[in-house]
Amino acid sequence: MQFGLFGGARTKRGDDTANSVGAGDSHAYGDFIAYVTEAERLGFRSVFLVEHHFTGVGQLSASLTLLAYLAARTRTIRLGTAVIVLPWHNPVLLAEQAATVDLLSGGRLDFGVGKGYRAPEFAGFQIAMAEATERFDEAIEVIRKAWTSPGRFSHQGKRWHFDNIVVEPQPLQTPHPPLWLAAGSPDSIRRAAREGYNLLLDQLGSVALTIERVALFRDECNKIGRAYHPTMVGVTRALQIVHDEKERQAAFETRARVVDRIGDLARGGGTIAPPEHDDAPLLGTPAEVVARLRQLQAGGVENVLLVDPAATVAALQAFAREVMPAFAVNRAAAE
Amino acid sequence: MQFGLFGGARTKRGDDTANSVGAGDSHAYGDFIAYVTEAERLGFRSVFLVEHHFTGVGQLSASLTLLAYLAARTRTIRLGTAVIVLPWHNPVLLAEQAATVDLLSGGRLDFGVGKGYRAPEFAGFQIAMAEATERFDEAIEVIRKAWTSPGRFSHQGKRWHFDNIVVEPQPLQTPHPPLWLAAGSPDSIRRAAREGYNLLLDQLGSVALTIERVALFRDECNKIGRAYHPTMVGVTRALQIVHDEKERQAAFETRARVVDRIGDLARGGGTIAPPEHDDAPLLGTPAEVVARLRQLQAGGVENVLLVDPAATVAALQAFAREVMPAFAVNRAAAE
Repeated sequence: MQFGLFGGARTKRGDDTANSVGAGDSHAYGDFIAYVTEAERLGFRSVFLVEHHFTGVGQLSASLTLLAYLAARTRTIRLGTAVIVLPWHNPVLLAEQAATVDLLSGGRLDFGVGKGYRAPEFAGFQIAMAEATERFDEAIEVIRKAWTSPGRFSHQGKRWHFDNIVVEPQPLQTPHPPLWLAAGSPDSIRRAAREGYNLLLDQLGSVALTIERVALFRDECNKIGRAYHPTMVGVTRALQIVHDEKERQAAFETRARVVDRIGDLARGGGTIAPPEHDDAPLLGTPAEVVARLRQLQAGGVENVLLVDPAATVAALQAFAREVMPAFAVNRAAAE
Repeated sequence: MQFGLFGGARTKRGDDTANSVGAGDSHAYGDFIAYVTEAERLGFRSVFLVEHHFTGVGQLSASLTLLAYLAARTRTIRLGTAVIVLPWHNPVLLAEQAATVDLLSGGRLDFGVGKGYRAPEFAGFQIAMAEATERFDEAIEVIRKAWTSPGRFSHQGKRWHFDNIVVEPQPLQTPHPPLWLAAGSPDSIRRAAREGYNLLLDQLGSVALTIERVALFRDECNKIGRAYHPTMVGVTRALQIVHDEKERQAAFETRARVVDRIGDLARGGGTIAPPEHDDAPLLGTPAEVVARLRQLQAGGVENVLLVDPAATVAALQAFAREVMPAFAVNRAAAE
């Protein structure tokens, strides 16, 4: 089993608790950079960064820009976006920026894309939410062309028009960086498999639901003859290691706030159980967390992306010390 | 006097000579990174990167992405764009990316902007060249608002619409990174001074013309009460140190190709003299180069950006060894 991180930097430290737990993607930039470099040292294999705009709480907006910086500060950890919201971007500029990160990082980019879900972002960009899917579809078509056309190409679409262009640089990975898609419903999971995406699963789905989703993706890959490897599915999980009942109660409270706050993410995510019956998070003692990961592993999960609501180096180190050894993850694995 | 670099990385090494001398902005990315880090060590104070698209010869397209990487690999050198072509970009995404680079670099971003001049780029983006000015004007208005509005703002323009947004992160420099504009004609130089830009002067203007332009900018600043410092004008100059007549003839030939190739850049640049009478480049023996720089310095030039058609570390080192000492530039100056 391999472990990664899911989150993002933040410029403003929330002293408002509701904000500071946020969706787990807080941190001042400097702290976040230290967090990622330490994660690499501890054997984490990937970091996936969010992209958000106009939040007022300083969430990361320019994920590829930060990944370019991290490319220089790290050597082995894979650098992912989770996700870049395609409707906001000129697909050609985006293909150039992503390819540049791939090149600068020695081929470590994981390119996660999405269509957006936050109403205030659509309002801010003055883009109708109803257009999200068609904008996403057109943008990914252009990006794929940009990365795979043997020479120059043109695109005359509904929103974008390019004539006789060649996108440079080419990404280092061939044919291009892996594409990742967040999906939850059976239809969208099958579509991700058929269209060549890797799969990001949310942090709210129960163990059973997550295992079902992994199986669905794997089966669809097999059905269409696409080579499947378990690391193609990244399962995000909240990390909340506790050592006594007092910490457990505090972790339940944090969990409740997180679930409440990211409720709008839970499209197709099924019902969220009350904290004491919610088996999605890695919430518990180290032994309990190991047991939960073993359940996931038995169901085919081999790539877990930790969302740490506290996002501290101490929590990473505790995970590395108290949980990773059960899965034979060590520093050497990252090198 | 301080020295900087002007250029950019390139993915494809030209074995075609006409391409490989290019506009001086070649280099495979890895070489270019080594070049910039060595420049910092030698006491160069800034590097300004070009942005070009669809060239087919691999010129740098994502300048802010590369600057973000360089932010991590350098400590003191200022990181500039020369220029970002505003008509290609969503101004809000650009403001976010630039602010992120400013933050990650500890406030080292110099934000050079332009309206574009290459017809194949306008054709590729399917944007009418006739719209360049209005697109530029609208974009810089949005970027200034993004960086200086005390809270949320809206923008309903001809091309862009944003509602109730706040651009995060804020840049580290206050009120924002210095804005730079390339200008040549008297009107555009005066406008740059009035609108708060620093000034980039081209590598084709003669010594006399360059000195006139600097004076015009300084006088306009004085006239409107804007604080003036000579480092606010970056004078680009080709660097071609030679040590004998054979090298001088070869340098003339290279110069002729460069001038020919970037002729379309020379808007308002006056007539280009034949190589032996062209006093724009720093072409000659170290003593001749020092003498030419002294002429410029006597005319108020204190910030010279080298464009090295060969773009080798060896040429930088020769300049640092044989020319810089005459201007009391040393490593300590960069620290």
